[in-house]
Amino acid sequence: MKKALGQKRPETVDKATQALKKRIKTAEEVLAKVRQLAVKVKAEPAIARTLTDLNLTQACREVVDKDADAVLDEVESAIYLVAVSILKGEGFSYDIPSRAKGNQLYVPELDRIVLKDTMSQRPFASTATCRKAVITTRILQLVHELCAKRIHVTKRDLFYTDVKLFEDQGNSDSVLDDVACMLGCTRSSLHVVASEKGVVVGRLTFSEDGDAINCQKMGVGGKAIPPNVDKVSNIVSDAMFILLVEKDAAFMRLAEDRFYNTYPCIIMTAKGQPDVASRLFLKKLKETLRIPVLALVDSDPYGLKILSVYMKGSMNMSYDSSNLTTPDIKWLGVRPSDLDRFNIPEQCRLPMTDEDMKTGRKLLEEDFIKANPEWVKELEIMTHSKVKAEIQALSSFGFQYLSQVYLPLKLQEGDWI
Amino acid sequence: MKKALGQKRPETVDKATQALKKRIKTAEEVLAKVRQLAVKVKAEPAIARTLTDLNLTQACREVVDKDADAVLDEVESAIYLVAVSILKGEGFSYDIPSRAKGNQLYVPELDRIVLKDTMSQRPFASTATCRKAVITTRILQLVHELCAKRIHVTKRDLFYTDVKLFEDQGNSDSVLDDVACMLGCTRSSLHVVASEKGVVVGRLTFSEDGDAINCQKMGVGGKAIPPNVDKVSNIVSDAMFILLVEKDAAFMRLAEDRFYNTYPCIIMTAKGQPDVASRLFLKKLKETLRIPVLALVDSDPYGLKILSVYMKGSMNMSYDSSNLTTPDIKWLGVRPSDLDRFNIPEQCRLPMTDEDMKTGRKLLEEDFIKANPEWVKELEIMTHSKVKAEIQALSSFGFQYLSQVYLPLKLQEGDWI
Repeated sequence: MKKALGQKRPETVDKATQALKKRIKTAEEVLAKVRQLAVKVKAEPAIARTLTDLNLTQACREVVDKDADAVLDEVESAIYLVAVSILKGEGFSYDIPSRAKGNQLYVPELDRIVLKDTMSQRPFASTATCRKAVITTRILQLVHELCAKRIHVTKRDLFYTDVKLFEDQGNSDSVLDDVACMLGCTRSSLHVVASEKGVVVGRLTFSEDGDAINCQKMGVGGKAIPPNVDKVSNIVSDAMFILLVEKDAAFMRLAEDRFYNTYPCIIMTAKGQPDVASRLFLKKLKETLRIPVLALVDSDPYGLKILSVYMKGSMNMSYDSSNLTTPDIKWLGVRPSDLDRFNIPEQCRLPMTDEDMKTGRKLLEEDFIKANPEWVKELEIMTHSKVKAEIQALSSFGFQYLSQVYLPLKLQEGDWI
Repeated sequence: MKKALGQKRPETVDKATQALKKRIKTAEEVLAKVRQLAVKVKAEPAIARTLTDLNLTQACREVVDKDADAVLDEVESAIYLVAVSILKGEGFSYDIPSRAKGNQLYVPELDRIVLKDTMSQRPFASTATCRKAVITTRILQLVHELCAKRIHVTKRDLFYTDVKLFEDQGNSDSVLDDVACMLGCTRSSLHVVASEKGVVVGRLTFSEDGDAINCQKMGVGGKAIPPNVDKVSNIVSDAMFILLVEKDAAFMRLAEDRFYNTYPCIIMTAKGQPDVASRLFLKKLKETLRIPVLALVDSDPYGLKILSVYMKGSMNMSYDSSNLTTPDIKWLGVRPSDLDRFNIPEQCRLPMTDEDMKTGRKLLEEDFIKANPEWVKELEIMTHSKVKAEIQALSSFGFQYLSQVYLPLKLQEGDWI
């Protein structure tokens, strides 16, 4: 009796979805436009433009990745200079690059925020800076220990090594950024890392601290993105593109459907607001493999904010922007214009809040948005319609609509901006 | 010049730490007490006590894991019963087990909360329950589709498949729990999964959706714990214990130091409040391997709260508690008594807030705490001293104090409760 009922297990796919599905050609044909983009990306100059290319070195400063030995040398030089100054009778003081907003500069040629060259003195023999000079010395010593031992810790660990001196984690965090600027190297070069949050699956193999990792054999859960990207090497991939996904629900759908088997790609997500580890990992993938990055985010101002963090960094890490940012990410979806194009039902569209509207209008004034007229157009559609939608809104056409209809169709049409 | 300075790179370890370090014997000797515990755990009866063992089946209900075909059968039976009732002229109605607080029961023999047998009617022909009856039918249909297609989705995906009907995600979520109770199976059996958050490294291999995963070769980032534990099989391990860590900073330290190479263990963290996927994963590991679980959490009421979620579940998932909980987790550290024992500096001890104190006092009244006098003692130390501390406070003795001194010493002394 139960069996008889069980025989008919129909798939409920409505006619419109069926029609769209019919338009999807073979994987090879779907990928034709992506292949063109990939060729273009590969042909771009390998070395990104730097401050030096722009003859701006005098006026601006950025930090670079340095290995542990180079950082040890930098720390020792800094301390040596202080010692010489003391012996000369000129006192104990550090020269620290200013990270204040007034010392930040947006360089359109680089599409990044960098630091101008204002320096500030931090003498020990001043009541205003005495404590900060001591904290700076202590942080230099701790960084020296980390690099000598070749171990990585979090900012929180660093704070706890001398709570009596630091008093508040804000103090050790901010001096850590000062020290990175002073030594001219990235915060991750100092062996202080952010906690990891991201995951990755797909056509990618790499070595992590000596272990061979194959991201095509990582089940549906994927590989956790390592907190210290400098332990990642031997990146090899036959992927045609990187699919950057905002949320883990969409990531899970694509991983379970093994989307990367049909459409060779690397799928990664930072589960919302991207952390430093995920940004470094994406940058490393992009620079090594030189393949396009296509982004799948919610159709709301927050989705664009996330793209902006990947593409141009956050304000308080601007001295490190060249090492953290991946420019030239293509916005694949979900775009405001997709809502009508794919007939997303009214019930799945959410009204934008006042906060959303404010963020949206602010984004319209940002340089990195204005630089791309098609992004402006989409953002205007959003702010005019006052409607937003999540990636999951696509589930209204069936759970696998995202992996079987929406994404193949977008790729086939080369519908990214 | 720089080289001369660089030659001396001393390790700054103070005398007390040095003395403690000397007390640590060989790995084999350190593990002697753990081995005894492991033998004890292995000797415990394999099958956990169930409601049936207690002759309580008439009065209580719990759900069990069922495979996709079994769920399909359950859904079809439920619909069949409704159809028969309609044909008999008795109308369209569901019998739903009540999940209200009044229907929950703490069973001390099981150390779990279970549901009593109160049922509620959900007739279609009533203005009060008409909508809920329709939503129930729709959820049954969607679950049927998921199980037939063998795919997994999140609660958010489920909501978006019919926003018009569900209106609010709260409605689809709560009916989903009703359906799980009604069909007598766990929510993960319905192929609706939680998003993943946890990571694992160490002496563990398993298959995930056909891929062979070796957690000893997962670098320092570790393997992301899969959202759907039913895709995990072939669990093999030579670990002596599972080290359950509250936070990812400590996890990172242990992973980078390859703690599991010296002390054979599996290290996992859910990065704070444990998600369903991590809880299911831990339970599966414990049941398959039958090795002790030692917990490393902050010395504050929140750390204990986290242990309580692993051990006895949360109130709103009480119908599923037997499938989500891992009883018998040992509290290794950081315990309130450790603060004095290990001379944690005053500056690393934080005053407890009023909220902390309230939570602490509430915990003292909980059955699972009262069941263990040693836990009560520790909690009393905490509430009397009004002081808390994070795992990272151990960094005040050096970054690797946790992995090289604290943990080996605790293991060697068998200092868990």
